[in-house]
Amino acid sequence: MFKVGVIGGGQLARMMHPQAIALGIELRVFSEAENSSAHAATTQVGDYTKLAELREFAADVDVITFDHEHVPIALLENLEQSGVSVQPPSKALTHAQNKLVMRRRLSELGLPQPAWRSITSAADLDDFLNQQGGRAIVKTPIGGYDGRGVRIASSAADISDWLENLDSYGGSLLAEQLVDFKRELAQLSARTPSGEFRHWPVVQTVQENGVCSEVIAPAPAPVDHQAAVDIAKRVAEGLGVTGVLAVELFETESGELFVNELAMRPHNSGHFSIEAAVTSQFEQHLRAVLNLPLGETELVASAAVMINLLGVDDANSFVEHYPAAMERFPQAKFHSYQKAARKGRKMGHITVVGDDADELLRVGRAARDVLYNRGA
Amino acid sequence: MFKVGVIGGGQLARMMHPQAIALGIELRVFSEAENSSAHAATTQVGDYTKLAELREFAADVDVITFDHEHVPIALLENLEQSGVSVQPPSKALTHAQNKLVMRRRLSELGLPQPAWRSITSAADLDDFLNQQGGRAIVKTPIGGYDGRGVRIASSAADISDWLENLDSYGGSLLAEQLVDFKRELAQLSARTPSGEFRHWPVVQTVQENGVCSEVIAPAPAPVDHQAAVDIAKRVAEGLGVTGVLAVELFETESGELFVNELAMRPHNSGHFSIEAAVTSQFEQHLRAVLNLPLGETELVASAAVMINLLGVDDANSFVEHYPAAMERFPQAKFHSYQKAARKGRKMGHITVVGDDADELLRVGRAARDVLYNRGA
Repeated sequence: MFKVGVIGGGQLARMMHPQAIALGIELRVFSEAENSSAHAATTQVGDYTKLAELREFAADVDVITFDHEHVPIALLENLEQSGVSVQPPSKALTHAQNKLVMRRRLSELGLPQPAWRSITSAADLDDFLNQQGGRAIVKTPIGGYDGRGVRIASSAADISDWLENLDSYGGSLLAEQLVDFKRELAQLSARTPSGEFRHWPVVQTVQENGVCSEVIAPAPAPVDHQAAVDIAKRVAEGLGVTGVLAVELFETESGELFVNELAMRPHNSGHFSIEAAVTSQFEQHLRAVLNLPLGETELVASAAVMINLLGVDDANSFVEHYPAAMERFPQAKFHSYQKAARKGRKMGHITVVGDDADELLRVGRAARDVLYNRGA
Repeated sequence: MFKVGVIGGGQLARMMHPQAIALGIELRVFSEAENSSAHAATTQVGDYTKLAELREFAADVDVITFDHEHVPIALLENLEQSGVSVQPPSKALTHAQNKLVMRRRLSELGLPQPAWRSITSAADLDDFLNQQGGRAIVKTPIGGYDGRGVRIASSAADISDWLENLDSYGGSLLAEQLVDFKRELAQLSARTPSGEFRHWPVVQTVQENGVCSEVIAPAPAPVDHQAAVDIAKRVAEGLGVTGVLAVELFETESGELFVNELAMRPHNSGHFSIEAAVTSQFEQHLRAVLNLPLGETELVASAAVMINLLGVDDANSFVEHYPAAMERFPQAKFHSYQKAARKGRKMGHITVVGDDADELLRVGRAARDVLYNRGA
């Protein structure tokens, strides 16, 4: 029997569970809390920064993988040295944990990305701002997600609090060119330790306030599919990524692609694949980290859209509006992560699969509005 | 939060779990053993013939439903009288528990079925055999499944052991006409307590030694889809069935349909729907028993086949052959029920979805042979 251990009890671990049940894989989740989103698969509750707890968890699984990127690399190296299979391995994961490490490596590989530099002082930033026409993105290299740890800066004053606490961000900040993009895309792929690589169609992602709100699969034409796949493959192979890799991309007016962010795990941009692809990102991740052959990634329909359900307040958990939403939209697939309601929180999503992306968007948004109790 | 309690820890309860996780429904399973197929959702282990244990289980769920049909009706009536929602209700389930009760009710409803009679003596059987040209099917009305409790008889000697122990079969046996059928079909549908009814396309089922081995969805033409749906709807409404209903049908050379068996729960003939329908039978069952609106049942492709994985010996649990099977058949979806290997046991299944049923059958059987380790 195959046993996969997942560190982190969020919705990504939760969504691995159905696929593990289908395949007959025993899923074990190391959660931070009893009542996590992945509670049904949780076998250990604890602190993922404690080596002894991680060792205990790793003792009876075939492989350790992740719901998030926050486990200290030194602990993972320690596990690896004692023979634990960690997928993606620490040497890959370090690029997902630290955006400066990622930028440096992508530069070495010659991959297309925004201009960038490491910032340790106001002078560094001023210098970069001069090159960039007075505005740039500044990011904390570690720990940011969903728009957190990201600012637009036009002077050092905009990031003075970060500069004053450089130590807590690993000693330096990352400044990046503000790319004038037409839209954002994401290229989802998977790779096994043996080197098998498969990819899904590139998708369009829509962000609101730094958080993914909608995904359209495949990305409406025109789009340079081949360029997106080539980038994903070079990243996966160049960084030694295993499991699912999401490469977030900027697409410019001229159709050029630039790497924005990386995630080495199933990703919000791939939730559409649960219903819309022959093999979902969650099944593929399990297969990949176990070094099993990968599944077919073709879509089962012409198009799919995924609409995120973000908390609207501290009361509405959406499932109470299932009756109204299900009655009006029998074709929609509803997902709840069983999280307590909180404004802005990723609480669930809706997927609609069919022929015409515009029509699917219309249905998905209308279904979301019913769950939001916004009226029709 | 919706909470569904399932009595029985077999693969049907197991396969409800992924759909419950997706929808954010809390699934609780009452299993007979710690290590059941549905262990990941098991919250109570006990004896489903003990009222006190059932009461305890029912206390904190919104509805009780079933993985099997064996819970004594009197206990379910008792739960219902104390206000527990039991779906399907005891008054419907009694028809699935007792084949004589089922035949009698279908006759009252004027539904097409084989000639039948209740048998309490050798003389009764002789009489029926005379009408039926010397051969008939005899069934124990209670407790048979997968070909058990079913015999072909041409004289009372063939069932003398049953006649001598009539009390243990509820006092009488069921004799049925041996229908000269061309093939077997199954019509899957679902109904809510409020009366909403939806059906999937009628499928063809292939049995080996009384056990389902393959399912082709939809059933290859020609087939009288409307007649199959009408029968299912009349059964569901006439018997007051809620949740998923499987009506197994005989199709004669002339295309006439006769009701063979009923199951009031997700059924082997509907496993194809996990990948091949917009809403699977497991999701639909959860929605139906909670009286939520039902989901769209359309297929996502032209055709699908389901191939059962029956145990070949006491060692091969199939998952050890995943690497070889997944490498050759990336398009196949593999399901393991995590059961200990045993010859003839339903251990898992394979589904393949696509355009051409013959090609899908070829792929599915070849994938099964790799898992059976039979060579190619």
